[in-house]
Amino acid sequence: MTGLVHAEGVVVAAQQARLAARQVAALPTGVKNAVLGTLAGLIESERDAIVAATEADVAAARSDGYPEAKVRRLALSVAAVSQMAEGVRQVASLPDPVGAVVSSARVPSGLEVRRERTPIGVVCMIYEARPGVTVDAFALCFKAGNACVLKGGKEAARANALLGGLVRRALDAHGCPAHAAVILPALSRQDLMTLLGRSESIDLVIPRGGHEMIRFITEHTRIPTLAHAHGVCHIYVDQRADLDAAVPICLTAKASAPSACNAVECVLVHRAAAERFLPALAEGCRAAGVQLRADAAALPLCAGAVAASPEDFGREFLDLILAVAVVDDLDAAVGHIHTHGSGHTDAILTRDAAAAERFTSLVRSSCVLVNASTRFNDGFQLGLGAEIGISTSRLHAYGPMGLEELTVSRFVVHGRGQTR
Amino acid sequence: MTGLVHAEGVVVAAQQARLAARQVAALPTGVKNAVLGTLAGLIESERDAIVAATEADVAAARSDGYPEAKVRRLALSVAAVSQMAEGVRQVASLPDPVGAVVSSARVPSGLEVRRERTPIGVVCMIYEARPGVTVDAFALCFKAGNACVLKGGKEAARANALLGGLVRRALDAHGCPAHAAVILPALSRQDLMTLLGRSESIDLVIPRGGHEMIRFITEHTRIPTLAHAHGVCHIYVDQRADLDAAVPICLTAKASAPSACNAVECVLVHRAAAERFLPALAEGCRAAGVQLRADAAALPLCAGAVAASPEDFGREFLDLILAVAVVDDLDAAVGHIHTHGSGHTDAILTRDAAAAERFTSLVRSSCVLVNASTRFNDGFQLGLGAEIGISTSRLHAYGPMGLEELTVSRFVVHGRGQTR
Repeated sequence: MTGLVHAEGVVVAAQQARLAARQVAALPTGVKNAVLGTLAGLIESERDAIVAATEADVAAARSDGYPEAKVRRLALSVAAVSQMAEGVRQVASLPDPVGAVVSSARVPSGLEVRRERTPIGVVCMIYEARPGVTVDAFALCFKAGNACVLKGGKEAARANALLGGLVRRALDAHGCPAHAAVILPALSRQDLMTLLGRSESIDLVIPRGGHEMIRFITEHTRIPTLAHAHGVCHIYVDQRADLDAAVPICLTAKASAPSACNAVECVLVHRAAAERFLPALAEGCRAAGVQLRADAAALPLCAGAVAASPEDFGREFLDLILAVAVVDDLDAAVGHIHTHGSGHTDAILTRDAAAAERFTSLVRSSCVLVNASTRFNDGFQLGLGAEIGISTSRLHAYGPMGLEELTVSRFVVHGRGQTR
Repeated sequence: MTGLVHAEGVVVAAQQARLAARQVAALPTGVKNAVLGTLAGLIESERDAIVAATEADVAAARSDGYPEAKVRRLALSVAAVSQMAEGVRQVASLPDPVGAVVSSARVPSGLEVRRERTPIGVVCMIYEARPGVTVDAFALCFKAGNACVLKGGKEAARANALLGGLVRRALDAHGCPAHAAVILPALSRQDLMTLLGRSESIDLVIPRGGHEMIRFITEHTRIPTLAHAHGVCHIYVDQRADLDAAVPICLTAKASAPSACNAVECVLVHRAAAERFLPALAEGCRAAGVQLRADAAALPLCAGAVAASPEDFGREFLDLILAVAVVDDLDAAVGHIHTHGSGHTDAILTRDAAAAERFTSLVRSSCVLVNASTRFNDGFQLGLGAEIGISTSRLHAYGPMGLEELTVSRFVVHGRGQTR
């Protein structure tokens, strides 16, 4: 679907996705994998055209005065396109979640009760900039037996239209319904509202983008939404931490990807460890170009740090900036995390098993780590094989959403004439 | 909490529930079970007072001119109160879902990755009439490690206040936070909106009631909502059905509880079975006082039936009324269900395993049954032990919600200094 879409077009497109979803749900695994294989091949053979389309998007965005950070997210290098194809093949290689038996039992009435995974139905993803999401989201939704409605940003229109065309060719090559993937072009605010009102056709909305975009969407739809919101991640360095290991863990958790949602934003240090740990952390930060913002107790121990303001705690810096504070004990660290954390990812560094146990029992973020970097909260790193994002909703999928999280369980019950 | 609650009171109450939730999440199983045991005992010892409170609610509602069907749902007999206490003991006897390990693996980086069940946090239930929900919802939410905010109908105010007091006494007897259960009195529309706006304090809203109430709530909150909406349930009688068994299945699926959401609303009959099946069904319906509304093909075969109007298909009658239609084959039955069903519960009656397989593959309602009544879609009947309702959202919990569905999974990861 290209060109202008009117409100009516949006309604029809969502209905077509609903009809296609019924067919996709019943597709054999082999057919789904064949479509993904064809798509990976098409991405590779059209690599130069894809790169050229993203370059045209980049040039247009730059001349339209988009901020450079956003412009950069529109680009796809030759290597990134190859990786995209590889990602699609990887999804094909994962086990099909549809029909997987979650549990089964014979209940007293004699019924054989089976819970099994079934597709969600129609998944609508609304995202910005990155054109790679178009392919990733389709591959995951389709493998999990869902139809998808994909609404990317208008700044990536050329790349999304091209990639959407490849998806359609891959579906067509194996006789699958074209509307298994409805790729929508840029929509007016009014048409977006129309889309968000299609609760009879769409089962789930996944917004991925900035705060404002996510907030707008959750405020304007009755359709269930799984937000991928911000991560205010903490590392607590306990009094019994291995301090030699703690410095590189804290440093890489920030510096390896400062704007990732699983990057650490605040390091909390037990008072008894502060004098030994903080000077080493400060030294490492200086070398890595990370600015430390320290509370009053930490500041004298952190060479080169600046004084933190109260707003620096609970903040996602999205930059080479790290807040640091001294706490009296584990419970004070937990209290700080309850007050300032976002329930995304938090870690404790300690050799004390009881402290680790207490921390993981009291801090119930989507991922709680012991002696490892927060940046391991990622679908690939945690073994899901792939992810469509990291959910911060404490419902359905809390943390990375992989293939299984794009399904839901239903009951299939076999009886022998039981009445009730 | 009794008496008038102002907007500020609602905000504070929700915050208190959030704080209590952190403690409830970490409570040992034994403490939770002890609270439930004490509550069951209190319900029994206060049985007469509970019955008297419901009688006062009934009298007030009657004099306020409430419809008699609603007035009846306010009543609790002596037997119903005993059953309520028994239900609480049953929840105590169920396994604790919190901390249950869903999966665990060592991933290539050497991390030990465990997925385990964790409470959702604060669950807000908004319901009408039935005061028993106050106790059932608290017991299930609490056993699953959640704090709950319970907002019953103003017509059940006396019974809810009394039951809320018993819950608080049971919590207090074991040193548990009082705000593990915030029982709100009747709220103004404005205060309800304030409650629905507390996304920082409430993780999940479960509305249980009529269409309009559910619609109002899902339209006025950004908090994730699991609706318990209507059931338009079908039974398809295949050409290879055991017709002697089919008649009592269809009859009881309607007559045993005509206003239940899992009652059958429409029977579809394969053309080849119509002549033998429909006269027997009509005979049974006449005897059971069920009115049949038949399509043109079925009408001549159903003595005593009236002609169905188009609106009779896809309708939840909530009464001793059953729609019936003749279809050409299984695929036509599936098409009818896709068009008119609500994704709640659908059944096929057949001795043909391939037909059963095709039906369960194409119809993906929350519960699909083969050779059994739709009324088995119920948490107790399907072996969940108890249920807080039957969700029709294709997310998180699709179908009966038991203890497990009042939790979500999180990742707990143990490393040995892994950096990233």
